[in-house]
Amino acid sequence: MRSKLPQNKLSIFAVMSKMAAQYNAINLSQGFPDFNTDPELIRLVTQAMQNGANQYAPLAGYLPLRENIAAMVQELRGATYDPEHEICITVGASEALYVAITAFVHRDDEVIVLKPAYDTYEPTIALQGGIPVPVQLDAPYTTVDWDAVAAAITPKTRMLVLNNPHNPSGMVLKDTDLKRLEELVKDTDILILSDEVYEHIVFDEKQHRSVASYPGLKERALVTASFGKTFHTTGWKMGYCLAPKALMAEFNKVHQNTVFCVHHPTQVALAEYLNEPEHYLNLGSFYQRKRDVFLNAIQGSRFRFTSSEGTYFQMLDYTGISDLNDVAFAEYLTKEKGLASIPVSVFNKEQRDDHLLRFCFAKEEDTLLKAAAILNAI
Amino acid sequence: MRSKLPQNKLSIFAVMSKMAAQYNAINLSQGFPDFNTDPELIRLVTQAMQNGANQYAPLAGYLPLRENIAAMVQELRGATYDPEHEICITVGASEALYVAITAFVHRDDEVIVLKPAYDTYEPTIALQGGIPVPVQLDAPYTTVDWDAVAAAITPKTRMLVLNNPHNPSGMVLKDTDLKRLEELVKDTDILILSDEVYEHIVFDEKQHRSVASYPGLKERALVTASFGKTFHTTGWKMGYCLAPKALMAEFNKVHQNTVFCVHHPTQVALAEYLNEPEHYLNLGSFYQRKRDVFLNAIQGSRFRFTSSEGTYFQMLDYTGISDLNDVAFAEYLTKEKGLASIPVSVFNKEQRDDHLLRFCFAKEEDTLLKAAAILNAI
Ligand SMILES: CSCCC(=O)C(=O)O
Ligand SMILES: CSCCC(=O)C(=O)O
Repeated sequence: MRSKLPQNKLSIFAVMSKMAAQYNAINLSQGFPDFNTDPELIRLVTQAMQNGANQYAPLAGYLPLRENIAAMVQELRGATYDPEHEICITVGASEALYVAITAFVHRDDEVIVLKPAYDTYEPTIALQGGIPVPVQLDAPYTTVDWDAVAAAITPKTRMLVLNNPHNPSGMVLKDTDLKRLEELVKDTDILILSDEVYEHIVFDEKQHRSVASYPGLKERALVTASFGKTFHTTGWKMGYCLAPKALMAEFNKVHQNTVFCVHHPTQVALAEYLNEPEHYLNLGSFYQRKRDVFLNAIQGSRFRFTSSEGTYFQMLDYTGISDLNDVAFAEYLTKEKGLASIPVSVFNKEQRDDHLLRFCFAKEEDTLLKAAAILNAI
Repeated sequence: MRSKLPQNKLSIFAVMSKMAAQYNAINLSQGFPDFNTDPELIRLVTQAMQNGANQYAPLAGYLPLRENIAAMVQELRGATYDPEHEICITVGASEALYVAITAFVHRDDEVIVLKPAYDTYEPTIALQGGIPVPVQLDAPYTTVDWDAVAAAITPKTRMLVLNNPHNPSGMVLKDTDLKRLEELVKDTDILILSDEVYEHIVFDEKQHRSVASYPGLKERALVTASFGKTFHTTGWKMGYCLAPKALMAEFNKVHQNTVFCVHHPTQVALAEYLNEPEHYLNLGSFYQRKRDVFLNAIQGSRFRFTSSEGTYFQMLDYTGISDLNDVAFAEYLTKEKGLASIPVSVFNKEQRDDHLLRFCFAKEEDTLLKAAAILNAI
């Protein structure tokens, strides 16, 4: 049997979470909170189910939810999206990313992917017969080498995938980054797929800059976002995509065939929950506190780091601690020390290993302190 | 912009449901119940959310749910599936169908589709660069012309899509049908994609026969099923796929990239709910009563019909009532008479029109009687 995805490996997140469970390790690998979501949001889902919102939602999603998203994006990003034709509710950002690539990448199209990169972009491009063009950034990935990006552009470049704030590094792009990108794609018909699932999780003086706020990018962008990251409900698989009408029309053609629509009662609940901006506006300070608890606690350890600027991930450098490659070292930490993380090389071009592990700090302080104690003892 | 799905039209279900809402018509078009699901099932979802099952589920689904599905399939179909490696929980049967086609259909592969056919099969095949090979059945679609199917098989045939019980006709395949199919594919490497979402909705003396019960089919089959149809929760988008290990491994590679996993608390709830077999075993008699209420009420109308054998759909023939084609007649009924249905031609090869409309009887008796009154007055 010829495989459609011969190179596809089981997701590192599934691998490490399984290993964590097996060895009873603290699981800072796969990105998800170890605390529950707001009881109020649970109450709203229950209410929606009791009110009978249990049959198909509209294909593009429950309209009041799309309207509230449009209002939020207008407020935060100064960008206008028509809820009727430019927003689609998806099965997490996962489905949004999948559909965006599927709808636009034709056979032999090139797609530029900045590495390290989330693990679904390239297999999805390959499934379309497209050609992933990885541009490797240098550790600790705090800046983008736009000249390298420029050099990767060819007449066959169909799309560029951006991830900001960046998983796994926590890098948050600056105004100058987005302006440079705007410059680069001007006079081309390159599409931008901008994975902004951690948009509400940025720290210190940083500010999230969406491609939606840059007219030269917005006109060609599909922006994906996640309620799972924002409302501590990664298992609800609720996200959305924003795109100009002509792009969204093609997006919806694929979405119609992948899933048709998304868990209806949850959409009804989210529509109401979005009415309170503090439900997402406080997320940065909420996670900054967790980052700081974690980093303060490992200040005296032998691991080196630059503070994460956004996302709920922190990379730690174990150079000088072990000569194992990062996959082996992550396995060692999980099995022998009881702490699971993600080896960053799996996100890199040709599994390039910089001796970096990614830790998820979307956890109770107690969990973070226990993890820190393990790291301090290494 | 070159479209990946240039021929794709907006789903007829979305079109007709929207038209129904706009004209305040009784909506017997898109297939979904107008009554709520069991409060007990809602309570179980709430409980799962309160217990914190709100983060990622395993990629292939919550294991106890897969175990309970395996037990049910063993009991009802006499077929063994390993819950660990041969069952995947999906975003409705929709995603299962999408992934099954995507995982196995390569460019230029032929896929046989019996027409009339559900509207996502062919676009999904086309998206892979595959070639849909429609085999048109004859109205009122109560039998399959297996000789025509045999004639459509070529060395390039990669897959055959079956839908049993059949939407829109309500046809339920017989033992002889499945034996003939088993014979046809023997000594080929044709895969069977068997869409069995209405498996629990069969009437009178009929019995659902799953491809899973026929060894020569099971070994090459992907079977898709739907909790939405079975538990009156089409908007929860919960389904699953069964397949032998080697096929499921390829299926999961695609599923990992489309959505990764499915609404977790709902999976936990369904696992518990499946413990009571009467929750699905009574579905046939439940819907048979509705079918009979509807058909008895239109006995004196000018519409002709053969009773549906399964599914929650009934086709009515309006030959002699109007010369409009079925799309125009469905539109007329919706706008002028306040009753929405689905024109069957949209499922047919080259929109072949047999003057048939499909009505969904998954409705309160009161709704069905109101619809019947409209039909009786035509
Ligand atoms: C879908 S599992 C991956 C979760 C995640 O986004 C991450 O850990 O990076
Ligand atoms: C996903 S909307 C289609 C519902 C359905 O299965 C039908 O009406 O045939």
